[in-house]
Amino acid sequence: MKALILVAEGVEDLEFFYPYYRLLEAGWKVDVAGPKGRSVAGKHGYEIEPDLSLADVKADGYDLLILPGGKAPETVRLDERALAATRAMMAAGKPVAAICHGVQVLISSGVLQGRKATCWKGVRDDLKAAGAEYLNEEVVVDGNLITSRRPDDLPAFCREIFKALGT
Amino acid sequence: MKALILVAEGVEDLEFFYPYYRLLEAGWKVDVAGPKGRSVAGKHGYEIEPDLSLADVKADGYDLLILPGGKAPETVRLDERALAATRAMMAAGKPVAAICHGVQVLISSGVLQGRKATCWKGVRDDLKAAGAEYLNEEVVVDGNLITSRRPDDLPAFCREIFKALGT
Repeated sequence: MKALILVAEGVEDLEFFYPYYRLLEAGWKVDVAGPKGRSVAGKHGYEIEPDLSLADVKADGYDLLILPGGKAPETVRLDERALAATRAMMAAGKPVAAICHGVQVLISSGVLQGRKATCWKGVRDDLKAAGAEYLNEEVVVDGNLITSRRPDDLPAFCREIFKALGT
Repeated sequence: MKALILVAEGVEDLEFFYPYYRLLEAGWKVDVAGPKGRSVAGKHGYEIEPDLSLADVKADGYDLLILPGGKAPETVRLDERALAATRAMMAAGKPVAAICHGVQVLISSGVLQGRKATCWKGVRDDLKAAGAEYLNEEVVVDGNLITSRRPDDLPAFCREIFKALGT
């Protein structure tokens, strides 16, 4: 089983590392895609070495997409390949999990119309404007779409991700 | 099931939060013990609100003890109640898991004679001086004692913790 995580400078460290380590603990292969050819630093200073460039990202071969928050999504959402991969994962009905500002990538991908979701409260109006129904809950599961609000929702977020994967 | 985690100022953030969230995800109750009556900041700036004071810590009622690393263990190891609780968990054969500098608490508790273990390389000579056999491996399991070296060992560390718990 293989997961893809999209990052950029300023990613929320725990929102990256908790799901990343959690998947490795469960024996998954995880690809981290980020800005071409360089490491990124999280908001709290942890260094992350991406495996591939956002510009080379494709949905093929992945069983799960994770979109962590922090400042990264405002960069990731500008990358057309990242948005295309997000749309492809959603169209295939594969699990797509976004936490905090991670929903900004979903908003720009245009995949939220009529979906139930949650996010960091500071961007909830943008979530609603994108056609989603906003719920203030630690985790919202709507079909293949799993969303949470902030770092301390991570236990519930990952519990629902693993449920969605049937593991 | 209930776990105890011992922290202080400068704890390594991921080494606290990964096991903490991981246990919450699995439905555990987790008590965090730290300096009396105040929050602590991790090395990377995350705030942690302890549930109880190190000075009030007892081993009774806990199924697992976790000792994260960073700068915290040099404070925790000065607290006699924390050392007594560590010795009681070891004497009861309950799982005790230390990562990175977390072994400094085990060293001061005097529980390492003849045990196989690992730790952050900067304190491996102290581990050996305390009577342990040092192994440079991502995780070392010796009976109820589970040890790892650094943050990127966390997936293996938690995999072995959950194995030891039989879950």
